[in-house]
Amino acid sequence: MASSVVVGQYLTKTPVQFENFDDENIVTSSANNGKKECNGTPKDTSPALPGWYADVSWPGEAHIYKMEKIIFQGKSEFQELLVFESSRHGKVAILDGYIQLTENDEFAYQEMLTHLALCSVPNPKKVLVVGGGDGGILREISRHSSVQHIDICEIDKMVIDVYKKFFPDIAVGYKDPRVHVHIRDGIAFINSVPKGTYDVIILDAFQPMGPIAEVLADKCFLDSVANALRAGGVLSAPADSLWHKNFVVADTIDKCKNIFKGSVNYAWTTVPTYASGVIGFMLCSTKGPPVNFKRPINPLNPEQNGVAKGPPKFYNSEIHSAAFCLPSFVDKAIDPKRY
Amino acid sequence: MASSVVVGQYLTKTPVQFENFDDENIVTSSANNGKKECNGTPKDTSPALPGWYADVSWPGEAHIYKMEKIIFQGKSEFQELLVFESSRHGKVAILDGYIQLTENDEFAYQEMLTHLALCSVPNPKKVLVVGGGDGGILREISRHSSVQHIDICEIDKMVIDVYKKFFPDIAVGYKDPRVHVHIRDGIAFINSVPKGTYDVIILDAFQPMGPIAEVLADKCFLDSVANALRAGGVLSAPADSLWHKNFVVADTIDKCKNIFKGSVNYAWTTVPTYASGVIGFMLCSTKGPPVNFKRPINPLNPEQNGVAKGPPKFYNSEIHSAAFCLPSFVDKAIDPKRY
Repeated sequence: MASSVVVGQYLTKTPVQFENFDDENIVTSSANNGKKECNGTPKDTSPALPGWYADVSWPGEAHIYKMEKIIFQGKSEFQELLVFESSRHGKVAILDGYIQLTENDEFAYQEMLTHLALCSVPNPKKVLVVGGGDGGILREISRHSSVQHIDICEIDKMVIDVYKKFFPDIAVGYKDPRVHVHIRDGIAFINSVPKGTYDVIILDAFQPMGPIAEVLADKCFLDSVANALRAGGVLSAPADSLWHKNFVVADTIDKCKNIFKGSVNYAWTTVPTYASGVIGFMLCSTKGPPVNFKRPINPLNPEQNGVAKGPPKFYNSEIHSAAFCLPSFVDKAIDPKRY
Repeated sequence: MASSVVVGQYLTKTPVQFENFDDENIVTSSANNGKKECNGTPKDTSPALPGWYADVSWPGEAHIYKMEKIIFQGKSEFQELLVFESSRHGKVAILDGYIQLTENDEFAYQEMLTHLALCSVPNPKKVLVVGGGDGGILREISRHSSVQHIDICEIDKMVIDVYKKFFPDIAVGYKDPRVHVHIRDGIAFINSVPKGTYDVIILDAFQPMGPIAEVLADKCFLDSVANALRAGGVLSAPADSLWHKNFVVADTIDKCKNIFKGSVNYAWTTVPTYASGVIGFMLCSTKGPPVNFKRPINPLNPEQNGVAKGPPKFYNSEIHSAAFCLPSFVDKAIDPKRY
């Protein structure tokens, strides 16, 4: 799905080539001097758009953010990470040129990705997060007092360290004593766990705007995820925006149904940071006690906020159910046989 | 609410001044040579971003679109209108520098603004559209067979002519024989109609991203709207995005409750074109037969598409109810006393 290539551009020492944004080449960053902290302004980094970061999610359009100050810029063996203070969105994190989150709206994504799963099953006890190094999903899981054990498998320690230092309200999730951190490759980790280990697995290891067809295309990987879940356990993963030009989720849903053998649903919500202002979610349950994602049975307790500073800002039971209500053109894309 | 100023920038002969985007000055277009049709490419119009239109909805960020071809550029006694073919969003219309719609997602706005109102009351017969010169709301009203008479009051004939010529799938609404066009000022028109004339009034006369507090601040205007509605009649109007930095809708809701004396609700949906990818709606009913906006009682008949080419692409009864489900931080902004 070449047309859905996610293109990121920041801090280039050469001019931003806007004329290239509408083809399908990835414009990669040339800023890479190893891990270091910065305190400069990026005014001189992009002659075409000095002081602005351009998120070119889809060819032919871009979302640009004014950078007030670069806070961190570094490279691990896996990826490059940039953190800047924006004019309007608080701190912004860019991983390998892809926008990861802004302080302004990260809660919408983290809360929905987490609670759409955890509020759909009774009494979840053991949870795995794959990716999610920023800690925001851990923060959200910590609201669930039934949970006894939280594994997080993040391949890149740099991500965790940077979020802990510069995004304390997100990385606060690591303060939950139930959290066990594994610095490992997520696929290898999932393959290593005994069958039926987890009540809930949350995947956050992909570019959020990437095409679901690619993200969830690997049958072996999905088999491993299903295997690691208990009967009636639940997977939550980000999925394409319904506004994606090549939105084709029907095949993925069919594949997930074959693998997970329980409920498979697509949901969506508003996250202005992501392309089109929308992000989708795939929710899948394994064969076992039935899961009706549209009617959450395990509501959040407003008195229990775990390590979070206060109650959820976005999620509630009404918005949970509403997230599964789809515009007609999406219904049609998901279930073309009905039309 | 100066910080919410909507800034548009296109086709300037001078460089796009990105450094000005984060202050509160409106950057106006300098392209204004009277009404004319164009067939050129805009490559040389903006040295900083040649060939791109920048929608600077909020200070510190912008959404940019690649312009393939300028289709129309003109000025009436009221405003300037630009139409260009974009790379990804079909034709795009810009009015006085504000993005009005793209072919890619106009249906989401038009359908929701229209049907949230018309599907909430039984048997609507007489409808007024104020603004809405593109004709898309007329197209949507035409799906309702109970409607006998549709007035549209649009101040600018140029808008109607341009949409009829370049956006035939939107302006198709004018082909409905129930439509009566009034080229007049909307406020004067509303003041002139007898009390209780309309079942439904749809306002589309404002910048869609403008602050609701300003749009609906004029008590006299709202009194006139309420007066023009029958008992239990309904107003639908665009409102702020819930992601607006200064989202303060509680006062507006209180004011509308005092004036309309029926139900007053805030809804939202996804429209990627508008700032943050979200637009809000205000739904108000006058004293009379009760209206429960959250549970539509007048569903669309899928066999009745009026002058539209096919069934709605976005609206359905589920998405109608879901539109009134609000994230927790919006609930709090709307009803702070509950928190």
